[in-house]
Amino acid sequence: MIRLKEQLKELISIGEAEWESFAEQLVKENLKAKTELLRAGQIARKIYFIEEGLMRCYHLKDGKEVSTYFACDQQFISAYASFITQEYSFEYLETLEDSIVYSLSNYKFNRLLELSPKFEKLARILAERNYLCVLNRIFSMQTKSAKEHYLEFIEQNELKVLQRVPQYMIASFLGIAPESLSRIRKQISSS
Amino acid sequence: MIRLKEQLKELISIGEAEWESFAEQLVKENLKAKTELLRAGQIARKIYFIEEGLMRCYHLKDGKEVSTYFACDQQFISAYASFITQEYSFEYLETLEDSIVYSLSNYKFNRLLELSPKFEKLARILAERNYLCVLNRIFSMQTKSAKEHYLEFIEQNELKVLQRVPQYMIASFLGIAPESLSRIRKQISSS
Repeated sequence: MIRLKEQLKELISIGEAEWESFAEQLVKENLKAKTELLRAGQIARKIYFIEEGLMRCYHLKDGKEVSTYFACDQQFISAYASFITQEYSFEYLETLEDSIVYSLSNYKFNRLLELSPKFEKLARILAERNYLCVLNRIFSMQTKSAKEHYLEFIEQNELKVLQRVPQYMIASFLGIAPESLSRIRKQISSS
Repeated sequence: MIRLKEQLKELISIGEAEWESFAEQLVKENLKAKTELLRAGQIARKIYFIEEGLMRCYHLKDGKEVSTYFACDQQFISAYASFITQEYSFEYLETLEDSIVYSLSNYKFNRLLELSPKFEKLARILAERNYLCVLNRIFSMQTKSAKEHYLEFIEQNELKVLQRVPQYMIASFLGIAPESLSRIRKQISSS
């Protein structure tokens, strides 16, 4: 949990007492690979900080999975729209590999917001990051070539995501066919 | 400005003194229709609260305008990604009609965040709303029929946007051809 503390220190200059208040709310969970944490139609009650692992969000399009978000070690993940609205999710959330996470319930999250403006700031930063992430995805999908979009994906993601997430999941995130991604990867590695 | 005050009271339970601090930072601007407030490649220095008017954001795709956001009376608008990151915008921001707005600079916005946790909360709410808006757009574009997506657009937007924004701009927002939108509108009005 030391790295989460470091992140919070950096992001919101959290002090020892505030850290204690925060840490007390977390629940450590050991999750097996391919654990379904949330299905569409359910309400996302938790946000997760991944100590070590690999997770993703996705939704269904004509019965096929479209990945919408990947996260690994030291990153936050949730079916975020449902988490902040407490309305039904259209997203699924699952682990791709065995993961050790710290979860924080929506109820406790909201209590923290009332406790200190620093947690309000943390919530704002998370919201802004999520906004930029989804905006960037839609913009790149609409304006960039598949190759440019993939190169950007490489730039913006951790090595672990690039190496361990199955290629068909990345292709669906980019909005391209797996065969196209395979072609692009060959082009890049031979250039 | 009375309605902005009411909104802030509702959103963040702002008191009189905090309202004064907020209101002092605002600059009233009378803008002519088709005023270009921001071009791609510039940095968004201001967020706007529209007292009365109609504005939009868009970006270019193969030289063509793709609308990304509409706002009218009593709503906030900004080239938000650039506003929060203070990096170069890929979006344009313009008025579609004569507009009376209150602008708040990024510098003053950040000072307010330091002044009271209530403004931090306001910033979080704006970030969450923007997140939901763009997520919803990408999801609907990917999973819904053009007709469903347009019906949802009707549901989620003010009458003023529906009546006064040119149809080709709405079509580009929905990611469909203007002729398709025209056909859908005929279908709806005759059903």
